[in-house]
Amino acid sequence: MRDPRNIAVIGVTGYTGFELAKLLLHHPEVSQATFYVRDTNGSHCLSQLFPQLRGCGEAPLRALCAEAIASSSAGTAFLATPHEASAELAPQLLDAGLKIVDLSGAFRFSSADTFSSWYKLPAPHASRLRDAAYGLPELYADNVRSAKLVANPGCYATSVILALRPLVQAGLLSPAQNVICDCKSGASGAGKDPRRDLHFVEVDENFRAYNLFSHRHTPEILEHAGLSESQVVFTTHLLPVARGILSTIYVSLARPETPESIETLYRQFFCGRPLVRIWPAGKLPELQHVTNSNFCDIGFALDLAGKRLIVVSCLDNLGKGAAGQAIQNYNLMLGIEEQTGLI
Amino acid sequence: MRDPRNIAVIGVTGYTGFELAKLLLHHPEVSQATFYVRDTNGSHCLSQLFPQLRGCGEAPLRALCAEAIASSSAGTAFLATPHEASAELAPQLLDAGLKIVDLSGAFRFSSADTFSSWYKLPAPHASRLRDAAYGLPELYADNVRSAKLVANPGCYATSVILALRPLVQAGLLSPAQNVICDCKSGASGAGKDPRRDLHFVEVDENFRAYNLFSHRHTPEILEHAGLSESQVVFTTHLLPVARGILSTIYVSLARPETPESIETLYRQFFCGRPLVRIWPAGKLPELQHVTNSNFCDIGFALDLAGKRLIVVSCLDNLGKGAAGQAIQNYNLMLGIEEQTGLI
Amino acid sequence: MRDPRNIAVIGVTGYTGFELAKLLLHHPEVSQATFYVRDTNGSHCLSQLFPQLRGCGEAPLRALCAEAIASSSAGTAFLATPHEASAELAPQLLDAGLKIVDLSGAFRFSSADTFSSWYKLPAPHASRLRDAAYGLPELYADNVRSAKLVANPGCYATSVILALRPLVQAGLLSPAQNVICDCKSGASGAGKDPRRDLHFVEVDENFRAYNLFSHRHTPEILEHAGLSESQVVFTTHLLPVARGILSTIYVSLARPETPESIETLYRQFFCGRPLVRIWPAGKLPELQHVTNSNFCDIGFALDLAGKRLIVVSCLDNLGKGAAGQAIQNYNLMLGIEEQTGLI
Amino acid sequence: MRDPRNIAVIGVTGYTGFELAKLLLHHPEVSQATFYVRDTNGSHCLSQLFPQLRGCGEAPLRALCAEAIASSSAGTAFLATPHEASAELAPQLLDAGLKIVDLSGAFRFSSADTFSSWYKLPAPHASRLRDAAYGLPELYADNVRSAKLVANPGCYATSVILALRPLVQAGLLSPAQNVICDCKSGASGAGKDPRRDLHFVEVDENFRAYNLFSHRHTPEILEHAGLSESQVVFTTHLLPVARGILSTIYVSLARPETPESIETLYRQFFCGRPLVRIWPAGKLPELQHVTNSNFCDIGFALDLAGKRLIVVSCLDNLGKGAAGQAIQNYNLMLGIEEQTGLI
Repeated sequence: MRDPRNIAVIGVTGYTGFELAKLLLHHPEVSQATFYVRDTNGSHCLSQLFPQLRGCGEAPLRALCAEAIASSSAGTAFLATPHEASAELAPQLLDAGLKIVDLSGAFRFSSADTFSSWYKLPAPHASRLRDAAYGLPELYADNVRSAKLVANPGCYATSVILALRPLVQAGLLSPAQNVICDCKSGASGAGKDPRRDLHFVEVDENFRAYNLFSHRHTPEILEHAGLSESQVVFTTHLLPVARGILSTIYVSLARPETPESIETLYRQFFCGRPLVRIWPAGKLPELQHVTNSNFCDIGFALDLAGKRLIVVSCLDNLGKGAAGQAIQNYNLMLGIEEQTGLI
Repeated sequence: MRDPRNIAVIGVTGYTGFELAKLLLHHPEVSQATFYVRDTNGSHCLSQLFPQLRGCGEAPLRALCAEAIASSSAGTAFLATPHEASAELAPQLLDAGLKIVDLSGAFRFSSADTFSSWYKLPAPHASRLRDAAYGLPELYADNVRSAKLVANPGCYATSVILALRPLVQAGLLSPAQNVICDCKSGASGAGKDPRRDLHFVEVDENFRAYNLFSHRHTPEILEHAGLSESQVVFTTHLLPVARGILSTIYVSLARPETPESIETLYRQFFCGRPLVRIWPAGKLPELQHVTNSNFCDIGFALDLAGKRLIVVSCLDNLGKGAAGQAIQNYNLMLGIEEQTGLI
Repeated sequence: MRDPRNIAVIGVTGYTGFELAKLLLHHPEVSQATFYVRDTNGSHCLSQLFPQLRGCGEAPLRALCAEAIASSSAGTAFLATPHEASAELAPQLLDAGLKIVDLSGAFRFSSADTFSSWYKLPAPHASRLRDAAYGLPELYADNVRSAKLVANPGCYATSVILALRPLVQAGLLSPAQNVICDCKSGASGAGKDPRRDLHFVEVDENFRAYNLFSHRHTPEILEHAGLSESQVVFTTHLLPVARGILSTIYVSLARPETPESIETLYRQFFCGRPLVRIWPAGKLPELQHVTNSNFCDIGFALDLAGKRLIVVSCLDNLGKGAAGQAIQNYNLMLGIEEQTGLI
Repeated sequence: MRDPRNIAVIGVTGYTGFELAKLLLHHPEVSQATFYVRDTNGSHCLSQLFPQLRGCGEAPLRALCAEAIASSSAGTAFLATPHEASAELAPQLLDAGLKIVDLSGAFRFSSADTFSSWYKLPAPHASRLRDAAYGLPELYADNVRSAKLVANPGCYATSVILALRPLVQAGLLSPAQNVICDCKSGASGAGKDPRRDLHFVEVDENFRAYNLFSHRHTPEILEHAGLSESQVVFTTHLLPVARGILSTIYVSLARPETPESIETLYRQFFCGRPLVRIWPAGKLPELQHVTNSNFCDIGFALDLAGKRLIVVSCLDNLGKGAAGQAIQNYNLMLGIEEQTGLI
């Protein structure tokens, strides 16, 4: 019998995996978590790999082996693995009866073509894509609750979709004007592998734009914000900070609005959702307000004419942008409160 | 007889003043520089105030006294003073026959009303505003050469105007779409006075937007880029770095262009201007490329349809954005090459 | 009737107070926490003052009034106030029957003269000093358990004493050689008040030594490590990070030791103490291992001759160095496990 | 005929090489500089490799080939290459008649055994080691002036030796006490190659000690400060800054001194040396005072008894600690003022 409170976490060596580990060690509903890495280097428990976890709880560390996971009693697996590895592992584990929260991009798209054209990789089988739920709980909680495979959204995508979807759904956007998403992220979003452009000296006291018109989170944003490619410009920048994303989003409104009406719109959209916090009109969230948290904070400014709206949306790319949201999805799949272990 | 190579620098205690000092101590055409501060605290020379300048050249330090400056043989004064102080000092020194480069906002506007409404201060006399040249040498070198009073532009304004003016002048902008200027600056741009929101802990590992729809550099940008307020959204953010501005500017073009045509447009516009560097199509400047320099670097990306253009413009807010540009203006007033002492 | 699970926190506006707030909002044994500030600015609850706390639990905010606290049913007060304020408030609240954990320096010394000569302030009454327990639980847990007033140690002092005391107690130190404590701290240790030397630009990309031979934590270190002033050199530096202290401590041993014997000594000394973590010989803790935690991590290196020992001790100055240790003391006073709410 | 003003720079891709390039492009006595890299990637001039150098002067870029350099008219070569490469290249170029400034560790030791035991590499031939001058101009200017091969000192070693040598030479050190050198460096000192522990996220908001009792600069310090291994503890730490070294050095004096006598000692020792700046007693240099400069700044604090001395020595590891010092050595070899092009 599979126990959904018995967890397998695959790929704990990256920043997201480590964040998952910290959250799961403190999660009140998890009865057991086992961590899998490609190479244990002789370690048997998590704190041998991460000495800073000593005294924070303990968990076994195992060499990755899909068969071993399948034959364990684990009911849920978190995949903090590269896209290719997730595409291969997820079907095996699903077939063995586990539920999956995948943090890679492999299952985020309903269309295999979309995945292949943006990720330059073969897509998972179409039926797997069709069955996967896009794990943005504020939009798709019901899908997530009943899903066997949840594709955890991209960090930038989460930040942008949560800011735009309420406006799109209310029909507030002027069709004549582009939506500009100017996004900035800390360096942990780029992963842990050594790279020349992520050397401390190359990021410190620096700031740069990257992947203009070509960032892989673009198709997620278009699909789930409900916009077409020609309407949206999505630009990413690298901040000299370890963690956090702040997106400054420029929207032209179809008709004049007031700060009160915009605030009300957001509050109603996210009513009852504990991990999105709407800031009062006239106040803006800052990166520090969300780092080391699992919240997405949204604030805005409106020009005097009520037509040009700037939305500031921020979150921790490892929290609500990755590991925190994965746990939030897990909570929904388990049937418990979505913020359990996250506040 | 006033000697234009004999310089008075007023207000050396801030970040801009210090940068001016470093540049002037190495300037090959300056024969003497005297520095004035409100309170010398018993120091008689610059390196007593700034021990890190010892061994880099030396200059006298004096208590600020407009009469003393007027009665010296100094031919040019740099005012690195607050707006109010500049508004008061500049007329006195002009009347005494000095030429002035003012780094405050006091003389940047042809209209006294514009100044007063954005700065909440009484404006200098209209004739003074009329006589002042806006010191952006790449646009107004002739005005600067013959001016007695040069208003050194704002740091953000320099970055944005240099990026936009070539496009506006060529008639490339689609009138239907807003121009979005998403700008990010290091903390030295906010000045040296202690402020709670500039405490190290409040800026480090943080990032925030500020002064939305209300930044004082807005009217400079509109006037000198040649755009109306309704066309431009100008947003500023605080980066956790000491120095540098990077502006990401979103423009919709009236007709499709190619990367080559855009690069050519910029190269031709800035042909012969040594302190603006155009990056080849497909490469983008980063903040580190310009910090501790007096260059403004401009690069861009164009979407496949050739209609949506993203321009990245960056400079050092204390270099090309302030002290470096002040020296560049001084060089023009002196009739020498504009980049003297700046490369 | 006073309820020890009903808490009053005084002085929540600084970095330490805010950290206390976050810990107390999640503490499983605290039934109520009320926060007091000098000026509520019209706010009635904590999250109005700190919007980043919305959704994390809530607590009332009150204007500071010793009488109001005394007449509430609060059983324990945390004082995150300046030395002078603590010296005045603690006696009033003690007399009203509350227990106190004071995070200032006011009650850290058995001698009034020591306090006055290092802090340049009038000392609290000698009887108050005598009754106060020095709240370093790894050394004085029994005193703390029975104390009515606990003086929470200084952040640097905690880091240094925990590293040195086991060596001193075992008689390992060579009497002929000085002990050198070269300590480095993040900027939050200097408090939140705006200061020119704490401006972002003055700390970023900088590093400096300060208060040589004159830091106020010196007498704590001497008294509780058990050393004389002539034996110890204690030097502090400002790191360009927000939080964390790393102390590099140089000790000459009276006789040759082995890495194993040193590791065993530390392990035995801190056996059963959940918030001090000893690193295995040959591995050293780094600042990141303890930031945002309530641990003190201790590692070491020994030269080949076994005579010269370098101990690296690190902690979060706001965690084990302040708020976390205050909660640890509170837990002991309450009779529960010392790490409750801290791991 | 070889022209000493015609320079070959080998290995320009690292941080030190780039710094050398910037200094040489502005050096008033260099008539030509040619830069050599292992792989030019199709670039022909320096600014193609480093676009941030455009407009700052220009220089040819060539694929590294010892024969080509030998057959050019270059009179001096700077080797900013790894130890192994320097050990191989230097003899070839020397034999071809060039003078060499080598920035690696290959020729820093008079003893081949010392090199091999600390660097784990075969040493250059003993005669080459014997002929090399240790390029610390404040100690060995005469040797440098007449040398054909100059070994540029290590960055940490420069900082420590300049602080200690005056004290040792004056016989001030107490023989009974160890000298403790607690040194902290920015990340550019570790080189530009991608490494997991130099990833931005691993250095940012972190601080760590490394290479305890085993840093390769140890033998340089011992030999040129004039101390034995048993007297010195030399410890290195990684600061979260790009550049700069600050060394805090603890010395016990053989007899009581006054701040005035210590200041005088240092001033006399470095009298006439333009790149070492002694701070007045009671003031300490900070890292920012020397970053982006070619100075070594030295300050100190003395305890009341006049027996325990703390010396703070700082420099830019890429300036006085590497490229700046290499140019200083070159200037001496050329017979011009040592600070030419460096202030």
